[in-house]
Amino acid sequence: MSTNTDAATFFEQHEERLNQALEVLATRGYWAPYPEHTKSYPEEQIQGAQAAFEARLNRHYPLKGVTVVGQAGNERSPYGFDLGITYDQYDTNELMDHQQAAMKSWRNAGVKTRVGICLEAIQRLNAISGEMAQAVQHTSGQSNMMAFQAGGPHAQDRAVEAVATAWKAMRDVPESGEWHKPMGRRGTQSLSKRWHIVPRGLSLAVACCTFPTWNTYPGLFASLVTGNPVLVKPHPGSILPLAMSVEIIQQVLEEAGFDPLLVALVVDTPEQPLAKVLAEDKRVQLIDFTGSSEFGNWLEQNATHAQVFTEKAGLNTVIIDSVDDIKAVTGNLGFSLSLYSGQMCTSPQAIYVPRTGIQAGDAHMSFDDVANAIKGAVQHWMADKDVACAFLGAIQSQRTNARIDACREQVEGRGTVLLDSEHLTHPEFPDALVRTPLLLSVDGKDVDLYGDEQFGPIAYVIATDSTEHSMALARQTIGEKGAIALALYSTDDEVLDQGEELAQDVCVSLSVNLAGGFYMNQSATFSDFHATGGNAAANTSFTDSAFVSRRFVVVQSRRPM
Amino acid sequence: MSTNTDAATFFEQHEERLNQALEVLATRGYWAPYPEHTKSYPEEQIQGAQAAFEARLNRHYPLKGVTVVGQAGNERSPYGFDLGITYDQYDTNELMDHQQAAMKSWRNAGVKTRVGICLEAIQRLNAISGEMAQAVQHTSGQSNMMAFQAGGPHAQDRAVEAVATAWKAMRDVPESGEWHKPMGRRGTQSLSKRWHIVPRGLSLAVACCTFPTWNTYPGLFASLVTGNPVLVKPHPGSILPLAMSVEIIQQVLEEAGFDPLLVALVVDTPEQPLAKVLAEDKRVQLIDFTGSSEFGNWLEQNATHAQVFTEKAGLNTVIIDSVDDIKAVTGNLGFSLSLYSGQMCTSPQAIYVPRTGIQAGDAHMSFDDVANAIKGAVQHWMADKDVACAFLGAIQSQRTNARIDACREQVEGRGTVLLDSEHLTHPEFPDALVRTPLLLSVDGKDVDLYGDEQFGPIAYVIATDSTEHSMALARQTIGEKGAIALALYSTDDEVLDQGEELAQDVCVSLSVNLAGGFYMNQSATFSDFHATGGNAAANTSFTDSAFVSRRFVVVQSRRPM
Repeated sequence: MSTNTDAATFFEQHEERLNQALEVLATRGYWAPYPEHTKSYPEEQIQGAQAAFEARLNRHYPLKGVTVVGQAGNERSPYGFDLGITYDQYDTNELMDHQQAAMKSWRNAGVKTRVGICLEAIQRLNAISGEMAQAVQHTSGQSNMMAFQAGGPHAQDRAVEAVATAWKAMRDVPESGEWHKPMGRRGTQSLSKRWHIVPRGLSLAVACCTFPTWNTYPGLFASLVTGNPVLVKPHPGSILPLAMSVEIIQQVLEEAGFDPLLVALVVDTPEQPLAKVLAEDKRVQLIDFTGSSEFGNWLEQNATHAQVFTEKAGLNTVIIDSVDDIKAVTGNLGFSLSLYSGQMCTSPQAIYVPRTGIQAGDAHMSFDDVANAIKGAVQHWMADKDVACAFLGAIQSQRTNARIDACREQVEGRGTVLLDSEHLTHPEFPDALVRTPLLLSVDGKDVDLYGDEQFGPIAYVIATDSTEHSMALARQTIGEKGAIALALYSTDDEVLDQGEELAQDVCVSLSVNLAGGFYMNQSATFSDFHATGGNAAANTSFTDSAFVSRRFVVVQSRRPM
Repeated sequence: MSTNTDAATFFEQHEERLNQALEVLATRGYWAPYPEHTKSYPEEQIQGAQAAFEARLNRHYPLKGVTVVGQAGNERSPYGFDLGITYDQYDTNELMDHQQAAMKSWRNAGVKTRVGICLEAIQRLNAISGEMAQAVQHTSGQSNMMAFQAGGPHAQDRAVEAVATAWKAMRDVPESGEWHKPMGRRGTQSLSKRWHIVPRGLSLAVACCTFPTWNTYPGLFASLVTGNPVLVKPHPGSILPLAMSVEIIQQVLEEAGFDPLLVALVVDTPEQPLAKVLAEDKRVQLIDFTGSSEFGNWLEQNATHAQVFTEKAGLNTVIIDSVDDIKAVTGNLGFSLSLYSGQMCTSPQAIYVPRTGIQAGDAHMSFDDVANAIKGAVQHWMADKDVACAFLGAIQSQRTNARIDACREQVEGRGTVLLDSEHLTHPEFPDALVRTPLLLSVDGKDVDLYGDEQFGPIAYVIATDSTEHSMALARQTIGEKGAIALALYSTDDEVLDQGEELAQDVCVSLSVNLAGGFYMNQSATFSDFHATGGNAAANTSFTDSAFVSRRFVVVQSRRPM
């Protein structure tokens, strides 16, 4: 039943999609291999998702591994209930030895086989998007709709992008060739040559709890497709989505005749964390990490035996210079602030506005006018509390919850609370922790108040001397702390040019004059690079060439013909 | 006179060569943009080279820089005379500030302009290949012919390869595009987007004394063409070739209207080395290094704020299992051992031969037979001492000279001196330090004798239990110490397959059954990857995709249409 024939078939089955991905990546236009709307999926998949999820609860989750040395699992839905799922913990030393031994046949299987298997696994992940939405919702706290999109098709799109980008990088190296050097009267030197794509070693994916699949799939699939076995270490608060992902990849590997443990789940606990232990092991040659700057920086500085790819904290920034239509701008911004309660790595936090006010269409608006317009927009989005719950989602961690109140207290006497954070009652989940955005107003000089990432629904409207001053502050804070997203609003071409320069100077992605239904938080696969890798918020980018090409080396052989 | 128009012209002038480079890189067949034979160059260039070189001697070498804080320069030709050239030492802090300020216009000049300028500079370097040969000969100790080829056209070829590979990586990202997302009844979301290639920061090139241009040009040009200013820090023993290179690049930059200090020479002394100081500066974001494992490893472990590219020591290995024609094999091997007195990063050192002997054609040869055949081949190459001097070159450093004698002493009582190293008198340069290869025979179990790189004309014929044992020892030593080159001789397809696996397991480039005029030391630009980046001998490869793509990030901007 299990033969490598499946693997060859997989490549053929998905080749058209692969070629389409490469075509789109050359122009970076719009394309999504997996539709983002539930209505594009079979009704039974969507309808049955909740029951399938509930069948997982309060049980042991079986996966393939090596010797079991313990069990762990203490996930709690931010919507107010325990998942009650336990997972096996394996002897990690044995697991790493096992993966190293399995690596060779995976390497020798060749590029096409690995590409086919990865694309097949992604396809099968797509087929459980409904259930994945439940798992992501009840670990990350995302709303169900967002959990479906970001945890399902959008994450799968990023996985396809990683596989396609890696395929391109590997395919750019010919498998074999001939070399004929004319030597004048001494004839010709002729060599036949082979170039092998060789994986670096074990790959460790350390996932976050807010986007367990979206942030993990790119590194996971980029490593796997280039031949590296992967240890998937979920955040203890968000294990299920990755357990489901690993299960499917293991199934496809096994069907194709490979060792399913080429991808394995490593579950740890806050009391006995494993990321550092694994990262220090020299068998681990690749590390992907999404999470705190503290641990990300530690990895960059200490795991020097490995290629380290990090996404950390940053200070996402908005600069308001002038607008045509303040309502359209603040409406857009208000939603950006509210979406998933600011728990996105692209959520805005620092909003710079000149204290002398701005030009808005034909009118002049004072700083307070602008601050109040932003406040009003957030209030507008919160007006229908049930609807608000559908995009706020729930607060993932108690630390984020506490941070909201701490930030509010911190500005007292030094700034203004424009809009306090309210607790909302979720219509379906009365125990869910739902909070509306906290909007604070501070002075530009008080960088200590707003100059660090405050993860969660917390934003600062910051009074500056001028747009030039706003840009200088953004340059300083992003230069030091990094950022993934910068938004600029201006009707002045010169200011827009300055923004384009600023973005390049501090290596941050720029969104200009967004209004309407596209938000600075959004990152479109196959078109938008997510993070640049050039500032302190991330040392890598989804998905540039370096993200994939650092995961393999080329080993050549040559012999006289 | 100096306008950016020149820059546009440069791209057009060299576009055909660039396209040819990309075509060849796709198949990795033979191509050399710059001919390796002096007879292909204008006679006056070759004839006038020595006089031009001599005119440089015993003078100050003027280059463009910032505030001069001292002078240095104490180069001595391994052929037995002092160069007597002094170079300015600049205020490095001021220089780095200056380069940072200059970076912006270089970044904004765009990819084509930078490519054109780099290719023009390489073209002009080609036009001084004759003089460069003199400079490389009298700093590295290479023979004049080798110095011409490796220091001139071959180094220039590697520079073109780096520029072309970087051009491909940058061009793979579109400059701009449109993104239209169909939103069903809500119409279409349309964004116009731009993607900027943004340099990482200052780039530091720390050069070696044996291949000052060949090992430095790839990183130098890859960094420069991707927008990063470059600090070129030569080895104190081999400054002149890089001073000449920097001078030409500065000229082209200035002609094209850019700041010539985008490339600057930083000269230091053994007493006051600067590489560490510069590497620790956070403005330096890229570091290319060729040299000792000690400093290379230090850079990898400590310069974690930068992208670090190293080529270090390794244990280049030959495994002899069986041969068709022992004369052809040992003749090839004997030359490999002798060429530039083993001072190449690809020179063989460890030669494994089963103690039970090998099959050679129809005959069986004992271990001693094989060892003596290698010895005889080296003696054959040394027979005409004047001819020998023409490929041995001179010993670059007194440390290498001392090492030959130390290695000989070390094996006494534990192994055999197959062939002692002799001092030869160079026909043109009586004070040159010329030594023939030292050939030792040791037992495979004595890894402490042969298991570290002994840079210079030192090689070990190592008795093993079997070819399987040879492979196991190679796997162990290369796994630990790294290697750039592995050669395998066998008439058995199964053994050749095992060698192909071994090469991939320890990430080393494999040469199979070389005989005749192509040697394991050689690395053909556009076809051979030099080092894999996958073992301890180097963390990078000339020129794979990661070598160039890590030098820039992509910064995007998007706005509603």
